[in-house]
Amino acid sequence: MKAVVIHAAKDLRIEERDVEPVGPGQVEVAIEAGGICGSDLHYYNHGGFGTVRIREPMILGHEVAGTIKALGEGVSGLSVGDRVAVSPSRPCNDCEYCLKGQQNHCLNMRFYGSAMPMPHIQGAFRQRLVAQAWQCHRVEEGVSIHEAAMAEPFAVTLHAVARAGALTDKRVLVTGCGPIGALAIIAARAHGAREIVATDVMDAVLKRALDIGADRVINVADNADQLSAYSANKGYFDVQFEASGNQSAVRSGLEVLRPRSTVVQLGLGGDVSIPQNMVVAKEIEMKGTFRFHEEFGLAVDFINKGRVDLKPLLTGTFPLNEAVTAFETAADRTKSMKVQLAF
Amino acid sequence: MKAVVIHAAKDLRIEERDVEPVGPGQVEVAIEAGGICGSDLHYYNHGGFGTVRIREPMILGHEVAGTIKALGEGVSGLSVGDRVAVSPSRPCNDCEYCLKGQQNHCLNMRFYGSAMPMPHIQGAFRQRLVAQAWQCHRVEEGVSIHEAAMAEPFAVTLHAVARAGALTDKRVLVTGCGPIGALAIIAARAHGAREIVATDVMDAVLKRALDIGADRVINVADNADQLSAYSANKGYFDVQFEASGNQSAVRSGLEVLRPRSTVVQLGLGGDVSIPQNMVVAKEIEMKGTFRFHEEFGLAVDFINKGRVDLKPLLTGTFPLNEAVTAFETAADRTKSMKVQLAF
Amino acid sequence: MKAVVIHAAKDLRIEERDVEPVGPGQVEVAIEAGGICGSDLHYYNHGGFGTVRIREPMILGHEVAGTIKALGEGVSGLSVGDRVAVSPSRPCNDCEYCLKGQQNHCLNMRFYGSAMPMPHIQGAFRQRLVAQAWQCHRVEEGVSIHEAAMAEPFAVTLHAVARAGALTDKRVLVTGCGPIGALAIIAARAHGAREIVATDVMDAVLKRALDIGADRVINVADNADQLSAYSANKGYFDVQFEASGNQSAVRSGLEVLRPRSTVVQLGLGGDVSIPQNMVVAKEIEMKGTFRFHEEFGLAVDFINKGRVDLKPLLTGTFPLNEAVTAFETAADRTKSMKVQLAF
Amino acid sequence: MKAVVIHAAKDLRIEERDVEPVGPGQVEVAIEAGGICGSDLHYYNHGGFGTVRIREPMILGHEVAGTIKALGEGVSGLSVGDRVAVSPSRPCNDCEYCLKGQQNHCLNMRFYGSAMPMPHIQGAFRQRLVAQAWQCHRVEEGVSIHEAAMAEPFAVTLHAVARAGALTDKRVLVTGCGPIGALAIIAARAHGAREIVATDVMDAVLKRALDIGADRVINVADNADQLSAYSANKGYFDVQFEASGNQSAVRSGLEVLRPRSTVVQLGLGGDVSIPQNMVVAKEIEMKGTFRFHEEFGLAVDFINKGRVDLKPLLTGTFPLNEAVTAFETAADRTKSMKVQLAF
Repeated sequence: MKAVVIHAAKDLRIEERDVEPVGPGQVEVAIEAGGICGSDLHYYNHGGFGTVRIREPMILGHEVAGTIKALGEGVSGLSVGDRVAVSPSRPCNDCEYCLKGQQNHCLNMRFYGSAMPMPHIQGAFRQRLVAQAWQCHRVEEGVSIHEAAMAEPFAVTLHAVARAGALTDKRVLVTGCGPIGALAIIAARAHGAREIVATDVMDAVLKRALDIGADRVINVADNADQLSAYSANKGYFDVQFEASGNQSAVRSGLEVLRPRSTVVQLGLGGDVSIPQNMVVAKEIEMKGTFRFHEEFGLAVDFINKGRVDLKPLLTGTFPLNEAVTAFETAADRTKSMKVQLAF
Repeated sequence: MKAVVIHAAKDLRIEERDVEPVGPGQVEVAIEAGGICGSDLHYYNHGGFGTVRIREPMILGHEVAGTIKALGEGVSGLSVGDRVAVSPSRPCNDCEYCLKGQQNHCLNMRFYGSAMPMPHIQGAFRQRLVAQAWQCHRVEEGVSIHEAAMAEPFAVTLHAVARAGALTDKRVLVTGCGPIGALAIIAARAHGAREIVATDVMDAVLKRALDIGADRVINVADNADQLSAYSANKGYFDVQFEASGNQSAVRSGLEVLRPRSTVVQLGLGGDVSIPQNMVVAKEIEMKGTFRFHEEFGLAVDFINKGRVDLKPLLTGTFPLNEAVTAFETAADRTKSMKVQLAF
Repeated sequence: MKAVVIHAAKDLRIEERDVEPVGPGQVEVAIEAGGICGSDLHYYNHGGFGTVRIREPMILGHEVAGTIKALGEGVSGLSVGDRVAVSPSRPCNDCEYCLKGQQNHCLNMRFYGSAMPMPHIQGAFRQRLVAQAWQCHRVEEGVSIHEAAMAEPFAVTLHAVARAGALTDKRVLVTGCGPIGALAIIAARAHGAREIVATDVMDAVLKRALDIGADRVINVADNADQLSAYSANKGYFDVQFEASGNQSAVRSGLEVLRPRSTVVQLGLGGDVSIPQNMVVAKEIEMKGTFRFHEEFGLAVDFINKGRVDLKPLLTGTFPLNEAVTAFETAADRTKSMKVQLAF
Repeated sequence: MKAVVIHAAKDLRIEERDVEPVGPGQVEVAIEAGGICGSDLHYYNHGGFGTVRIREPMILGHEVAGTIKALGEGVSGLSVGDRVAVSPSRPCNDCEYCLKGQQNHCLNMRFYGSAMPMPHIQGAFRQRLVAQAWQCHRVEEGVSIHEAAMAEPFAVTLHAVARAGALTDKRVLVTGCGPIGALAIIAARAHGAREIVATDVMDAVLKRALDIGADRVINVADNADQLSAYSANKGYFDVQFEASGNQSAVRSGLEVLRPRSTVVQLGLGGDVSIPQNMVVAKEIEMKGTFRFHEEFGLAVDFINKGRVDLKPLLTGTFPLNEAVTAFETAADRTKSMKVQLAF
C-alpha cells in the first residue's frame, strides 16, 4: 500500500508500506478520504512546531474515513463493507488521567501522526489502516465519505463547545475563521448560541463564515472599529472561541468580552502577551481546549443525522499522487478552507 | 477632622476636612484602624497605575474599622458604640451587572479611594466616616479593631477562593506571599485545601507563610528546581493563586499545574507573556478575581468566630501624623507585611 | 375594554374594565393573542391549586402578544404600531433574590394572573394592557402574533434547559408531551441534545412530539417495557425533563437515568413518592425549574430569527366571546395542545 | 484466622477462615480495628435491606485498619510493619463508568461486605486481610488505629461535601446526627461552611454534634418550631446534608431551604414522599451521594495531619469474641455513636 510520509520540511513523499496484520479486536480499513490539518501543514512547512520536530520519517494524517475490508477476531457490531470514520485518539485507558475520564490528557496517548514521542506515532494517510474496532464509527448511507472525514476537526470544536459550558442565551465571538473557526461556528450554532459574530482578516473566509451560520462578520484588518464598538459598558460577548492563534485577536477579544465571560483558546500559537489587569478586573476566564475524546462519536452522529452540514467547508480534493500539490493548496488561505486527499 | 490625602506621587498630606452630615440610613464612624493596601502604595509611589492617575486631591484608604458615633434616621440593628468593619464596596444595585448579582462589576461602583472616575471617589483614611448602615459589620467583643480592619483584604482572598471553586482534595500553589498571598493561604486552608505550597523570593516572607498554614514553602530565587520538580507527569497542582503579579510566577506555575487545573489571578500586573501552547495542551483555566462583594460580611464572620487568625500578618501600626513613615514602611517588603494607621 | 375574569371554579366571565392610564416608562398594548396555560385551567376547573385559591375576581392570562397603541413619557426604543410579546414577569429588582440575579424568586413578584398574593395580581387576558416598556419585546415582521404569544411557555422551557446545564452529548428523556413537554423537546433540540426520547400516554400527542423533533416516542400506557429496556447497565439517559407532574413518570424515569444524571422537574404536581435508595445509589440530581426571567427575551429572539418553529403546537384559536369554549377545549388533551384566544 | 460471619438476621458467628495467599501487588494486613456501619447493622438486624438479602454466609465489615504483615511481589512504597487504613472500594477501572472517573458507579464493583451480587463480596472483619497495595493508605505515627478505621465513614461524608459543591459562605443544615451526620458536620466545617445547624430527636446525640462543630442544634422532636422559624423569606439554608433517611427530615428541610439550594441525600431510606410543588417553586436541587472513591485517601490525609479529630465519635470498642454485644450496642442510638471491634 501507499502512504504519505514526511521526512523533513518540504520533503513529503509517497512511499510503499506493508499492510499490518489484523489482530483481535481490530479492523482493516481502506482509507478513502483524509483531511489535511494545521498540524500536518506545520510538519510539511516547518518540520514541526515549537520543540516538536520530525526526527524520523512519519506517515502524516489523522482526519480519515474509509471502508472496512477485514475484521479481526472477536469484533462485533461492524461488518466488512461498512463505511467508517476513524478516531485518531488512542488513549491507554489505564493512566491516572484516563481513570479520571480525561483521556485527552493520557500520559501514553498514541494520536495518529504525532512527532511528540520517539519513535513517532505513525499517521493515517495510507491506503490501508489497521485500527481498533472502537475507533471506528459507522457512517450512514447517503453521507459522503469526505464529510465523514471531517468528523475529526468537528470533534475538536465540539470539545471546545463542551469546554465553554452551556451556550444558552450566550453571545459568541469567533476569532479566526479557518477550518477550526468555521467548525466552531457550526458547533456553537448547533448548541443554541444566541448570537455569533466572527472575525478574520480575509473577506473570502468571512463570506463563508456568514454562509454557515455567523450572524455578523467583521474584517478586523479593515474595520477594527466595528469590533471595538462592542466594548461599551464593559463588553458584549459572553464567550470567545479563539481560533486564530493570533495575539491581537486575543487582546482585542478581551476588550469586548463582558465581566465573567469565557475565552476558549483553540489556536496553537507561541507566546502571547496578555493585559493581566483586564483579565483580573473583568474576572475573565481563559481556558485551553485540546483535541477531544468522546466527542468523536458525537461528531459522527451529528453528521449522520444531518444536524450539521460540513460540506461547504471542503474546498478541494486531490488524488494521493498529488499530495504535494494538496499540501501547497491547503496552506494557501486565499484559496482553501479544508483540503482532502482521496486515496 | 483629619484625613490622609494624596496630591501626587510622594505628596501625601494630613489635612483638615469637614465631617459630612449623617443622612437617613447612614451612620457616622470614628475610624480607628486603616490598613495600607497595594493600590494605596501605587498612588503614593507612582501617582497611580496604568491609565489610572491622580488628577485631584484624594483621601486614600479602604481597609478600615472603627466605632459608631451617630446613627441616621431609620437605622436599625446598629447602635452608637458598636465597633464595626466598614465595607468599601458601594455598588449601585441598579445596573445590569448588579441585577445579575455581579456587584463587583457595577457600572457605577463607588469604591473608597479610587482615582478611576473623575471626580475621584474619596477614601476612608479619615477620623470620621459617614457610611451606609449596610456597609457596617459589627465586630465582636474581644476582636481587636486592627484585625477587624483586615476584613477587607481577607474578603479579597475569600472571593478568590470562591472563584476557584470547591477546594476539596485540591493541591494548591500560592505564588507571592505578600499580604494578599498570605491571606490566600489562610482562606484556602479554611476551605479544606488538601496541600498548600507557597513560593516567594524572600525567606522572611516565606517563614511567615509557613507559620500561617502553608505545608511547604519554596524560595524560587534560590531553589527554582524545587518547584519545577512538580512538573512530572504533566504537573501536580490543581489550583494556583497567583498573588505576585510577576510574569515568571505565571509561567513557572503553568509548568507545574495539572491538566484541567485553574489559575486564579489576584495580582495586578501589566502585560504578561503566556505560553499559549501549554494553556491549550493542558486545558488550563486562567481566571481573574476582582475585589469582592458578599465576602466582606463573610470575612468579618470568620474573624468574629475566631475561625482564622489574621493578627500575625500585622507588622506595624503608626499614628496618623506618621502616615508618610507608615507608607514608606509598608512599601518595604523586607520589613513589612501589613501596615496600618491608627487614627 | 373587555377582560376574561375568573370568579370561581367554572365561573369565567367576559367583563368590562377601564383601561389604565399610561404612566412614564409604560406602553399601552392592544392584546391580540393570549395562550391558555395549565395554571389558567387550574383556576378555571378547580378554582386554584394547592393552597392557592381564587379569593376575589381575577383577570386570567399571562401568555400574550399585541400591538403598541400609546407610549408613556420617556419610552425609547419602541414605537406605536410595534408588535410585541409581553413578559408577565415583574420582579421588584430590589429584594435579596433580585440582587443575586434570581429574579424568578423575587419576594415581591407580580406575575400576571396569580392568586397567590391578596389582592390577586390581575392578568393579561384583556383588550388593552398597560405594561412597563421593558416587558415588551418587539416581534419581527412576518412572525405571526400567535406564535409570538407562545414566547412565554417557550421561555419556561428555555429556563428548564438552562437549569439542566449544557446538553452537549446528552441523551434526553422528556416525560409528558403536553405544551410544556413539547416545547422542552424543541428547546432541548435547539441546544444540541444528542438524542431525545419522549413519553406520554396518548398516541396523538406523541405523533406531534415526533414531528417537532423527538427521535423516538413511547406510549408508556401500552409499551412501558420499551422504556424500561433503557435501564440496562444502570441506565441510559443523562437528563430527564419531567413535564407530566405524574408520579409514575418520575419513578420510571429514575430507573432509566444513568448515575450522575439530572432530572429537571417542570410539572407542578402535589406529593410524589420517590425511591430514595435509587436517588442515592445512582447519585441522581433532581432539580426544580420555575418560570424564567431573562429567557423571555431569548424566546422572542429564537422566534424572530426562525430558529424554532412553534406554530405546530397551536391547535385552536377562539374569539374572546367564546372564552368558555376555549377553556373547555384547552382542557381536553385528546383534542388540544395549545389553545389561544384572539382579542 | 477468625472472621465475623453473618448467616441470617440475628445469626452472627465468629468462624475460622483460611488466610488467603498474597499475590503480586498485594499485601497481607493484620486487621486491628473495624467499625460497625449502618449497613452491617441492617444485615445483622434484618438480614439485608430492600431487595438486597443475605443468601449465603458473608463476612461483614468495611471500615478497617491494621498492620502490614507481608508484601506480595512488586509492591513498593509500603513496608511490613506499616499501619494502614484499607479502602473497601475495589472498582474494575475498566467499565464505562470507571473510564469516566465515576468509580463509585463501577458496573463490577467489589465493595467489602456486600450481599448485592451473588456470590456475595466477603467483608473485612477478619484477623488477616489480603488487599491490593493501592487500597492501603499509611497511617502516621501517633494516630490511633481506631481513628484510622474511621477513614471510611469520613470518606463518605467528604464525598458528600464534594457533591455539595463549594461551601464558601454557605449556611448548612445537617439532619440526623448519627455517625454519618456527625462526620458530615466535621467535613463541612473543615471545608469552610459559614454556619452549621444540626437536628436530631435525641439530646445526647445533639450534645455531641455541638461539641464537634455545629453552631446550633435543635431537637426537632421537642422544638420543631425552632427549625421552622428559618422558613421566613423563602428559607435560610443553602445546603442540607440529609443523614437521617427520615421523610419528615426531608420535608421539613425543604421548608427552610432557600431558592436554588441543594439537598445532599446521604441516608438510605425507602420511599419518601416529596412536596413536588415546593421543589419546583424554589428550584431546589436534591442530589444523592453514594460511597466515595478518591476521598478515602483524602480522609486518611486529614486524619494524619490532625486537621480533624474524629476520636470523640468513638463510643465503644469490643473484642472480637464479643461481636454480638458490639452489634447490639451499636444498634442502640441512646448509648452509641460509633462502635468498633478490636481484633
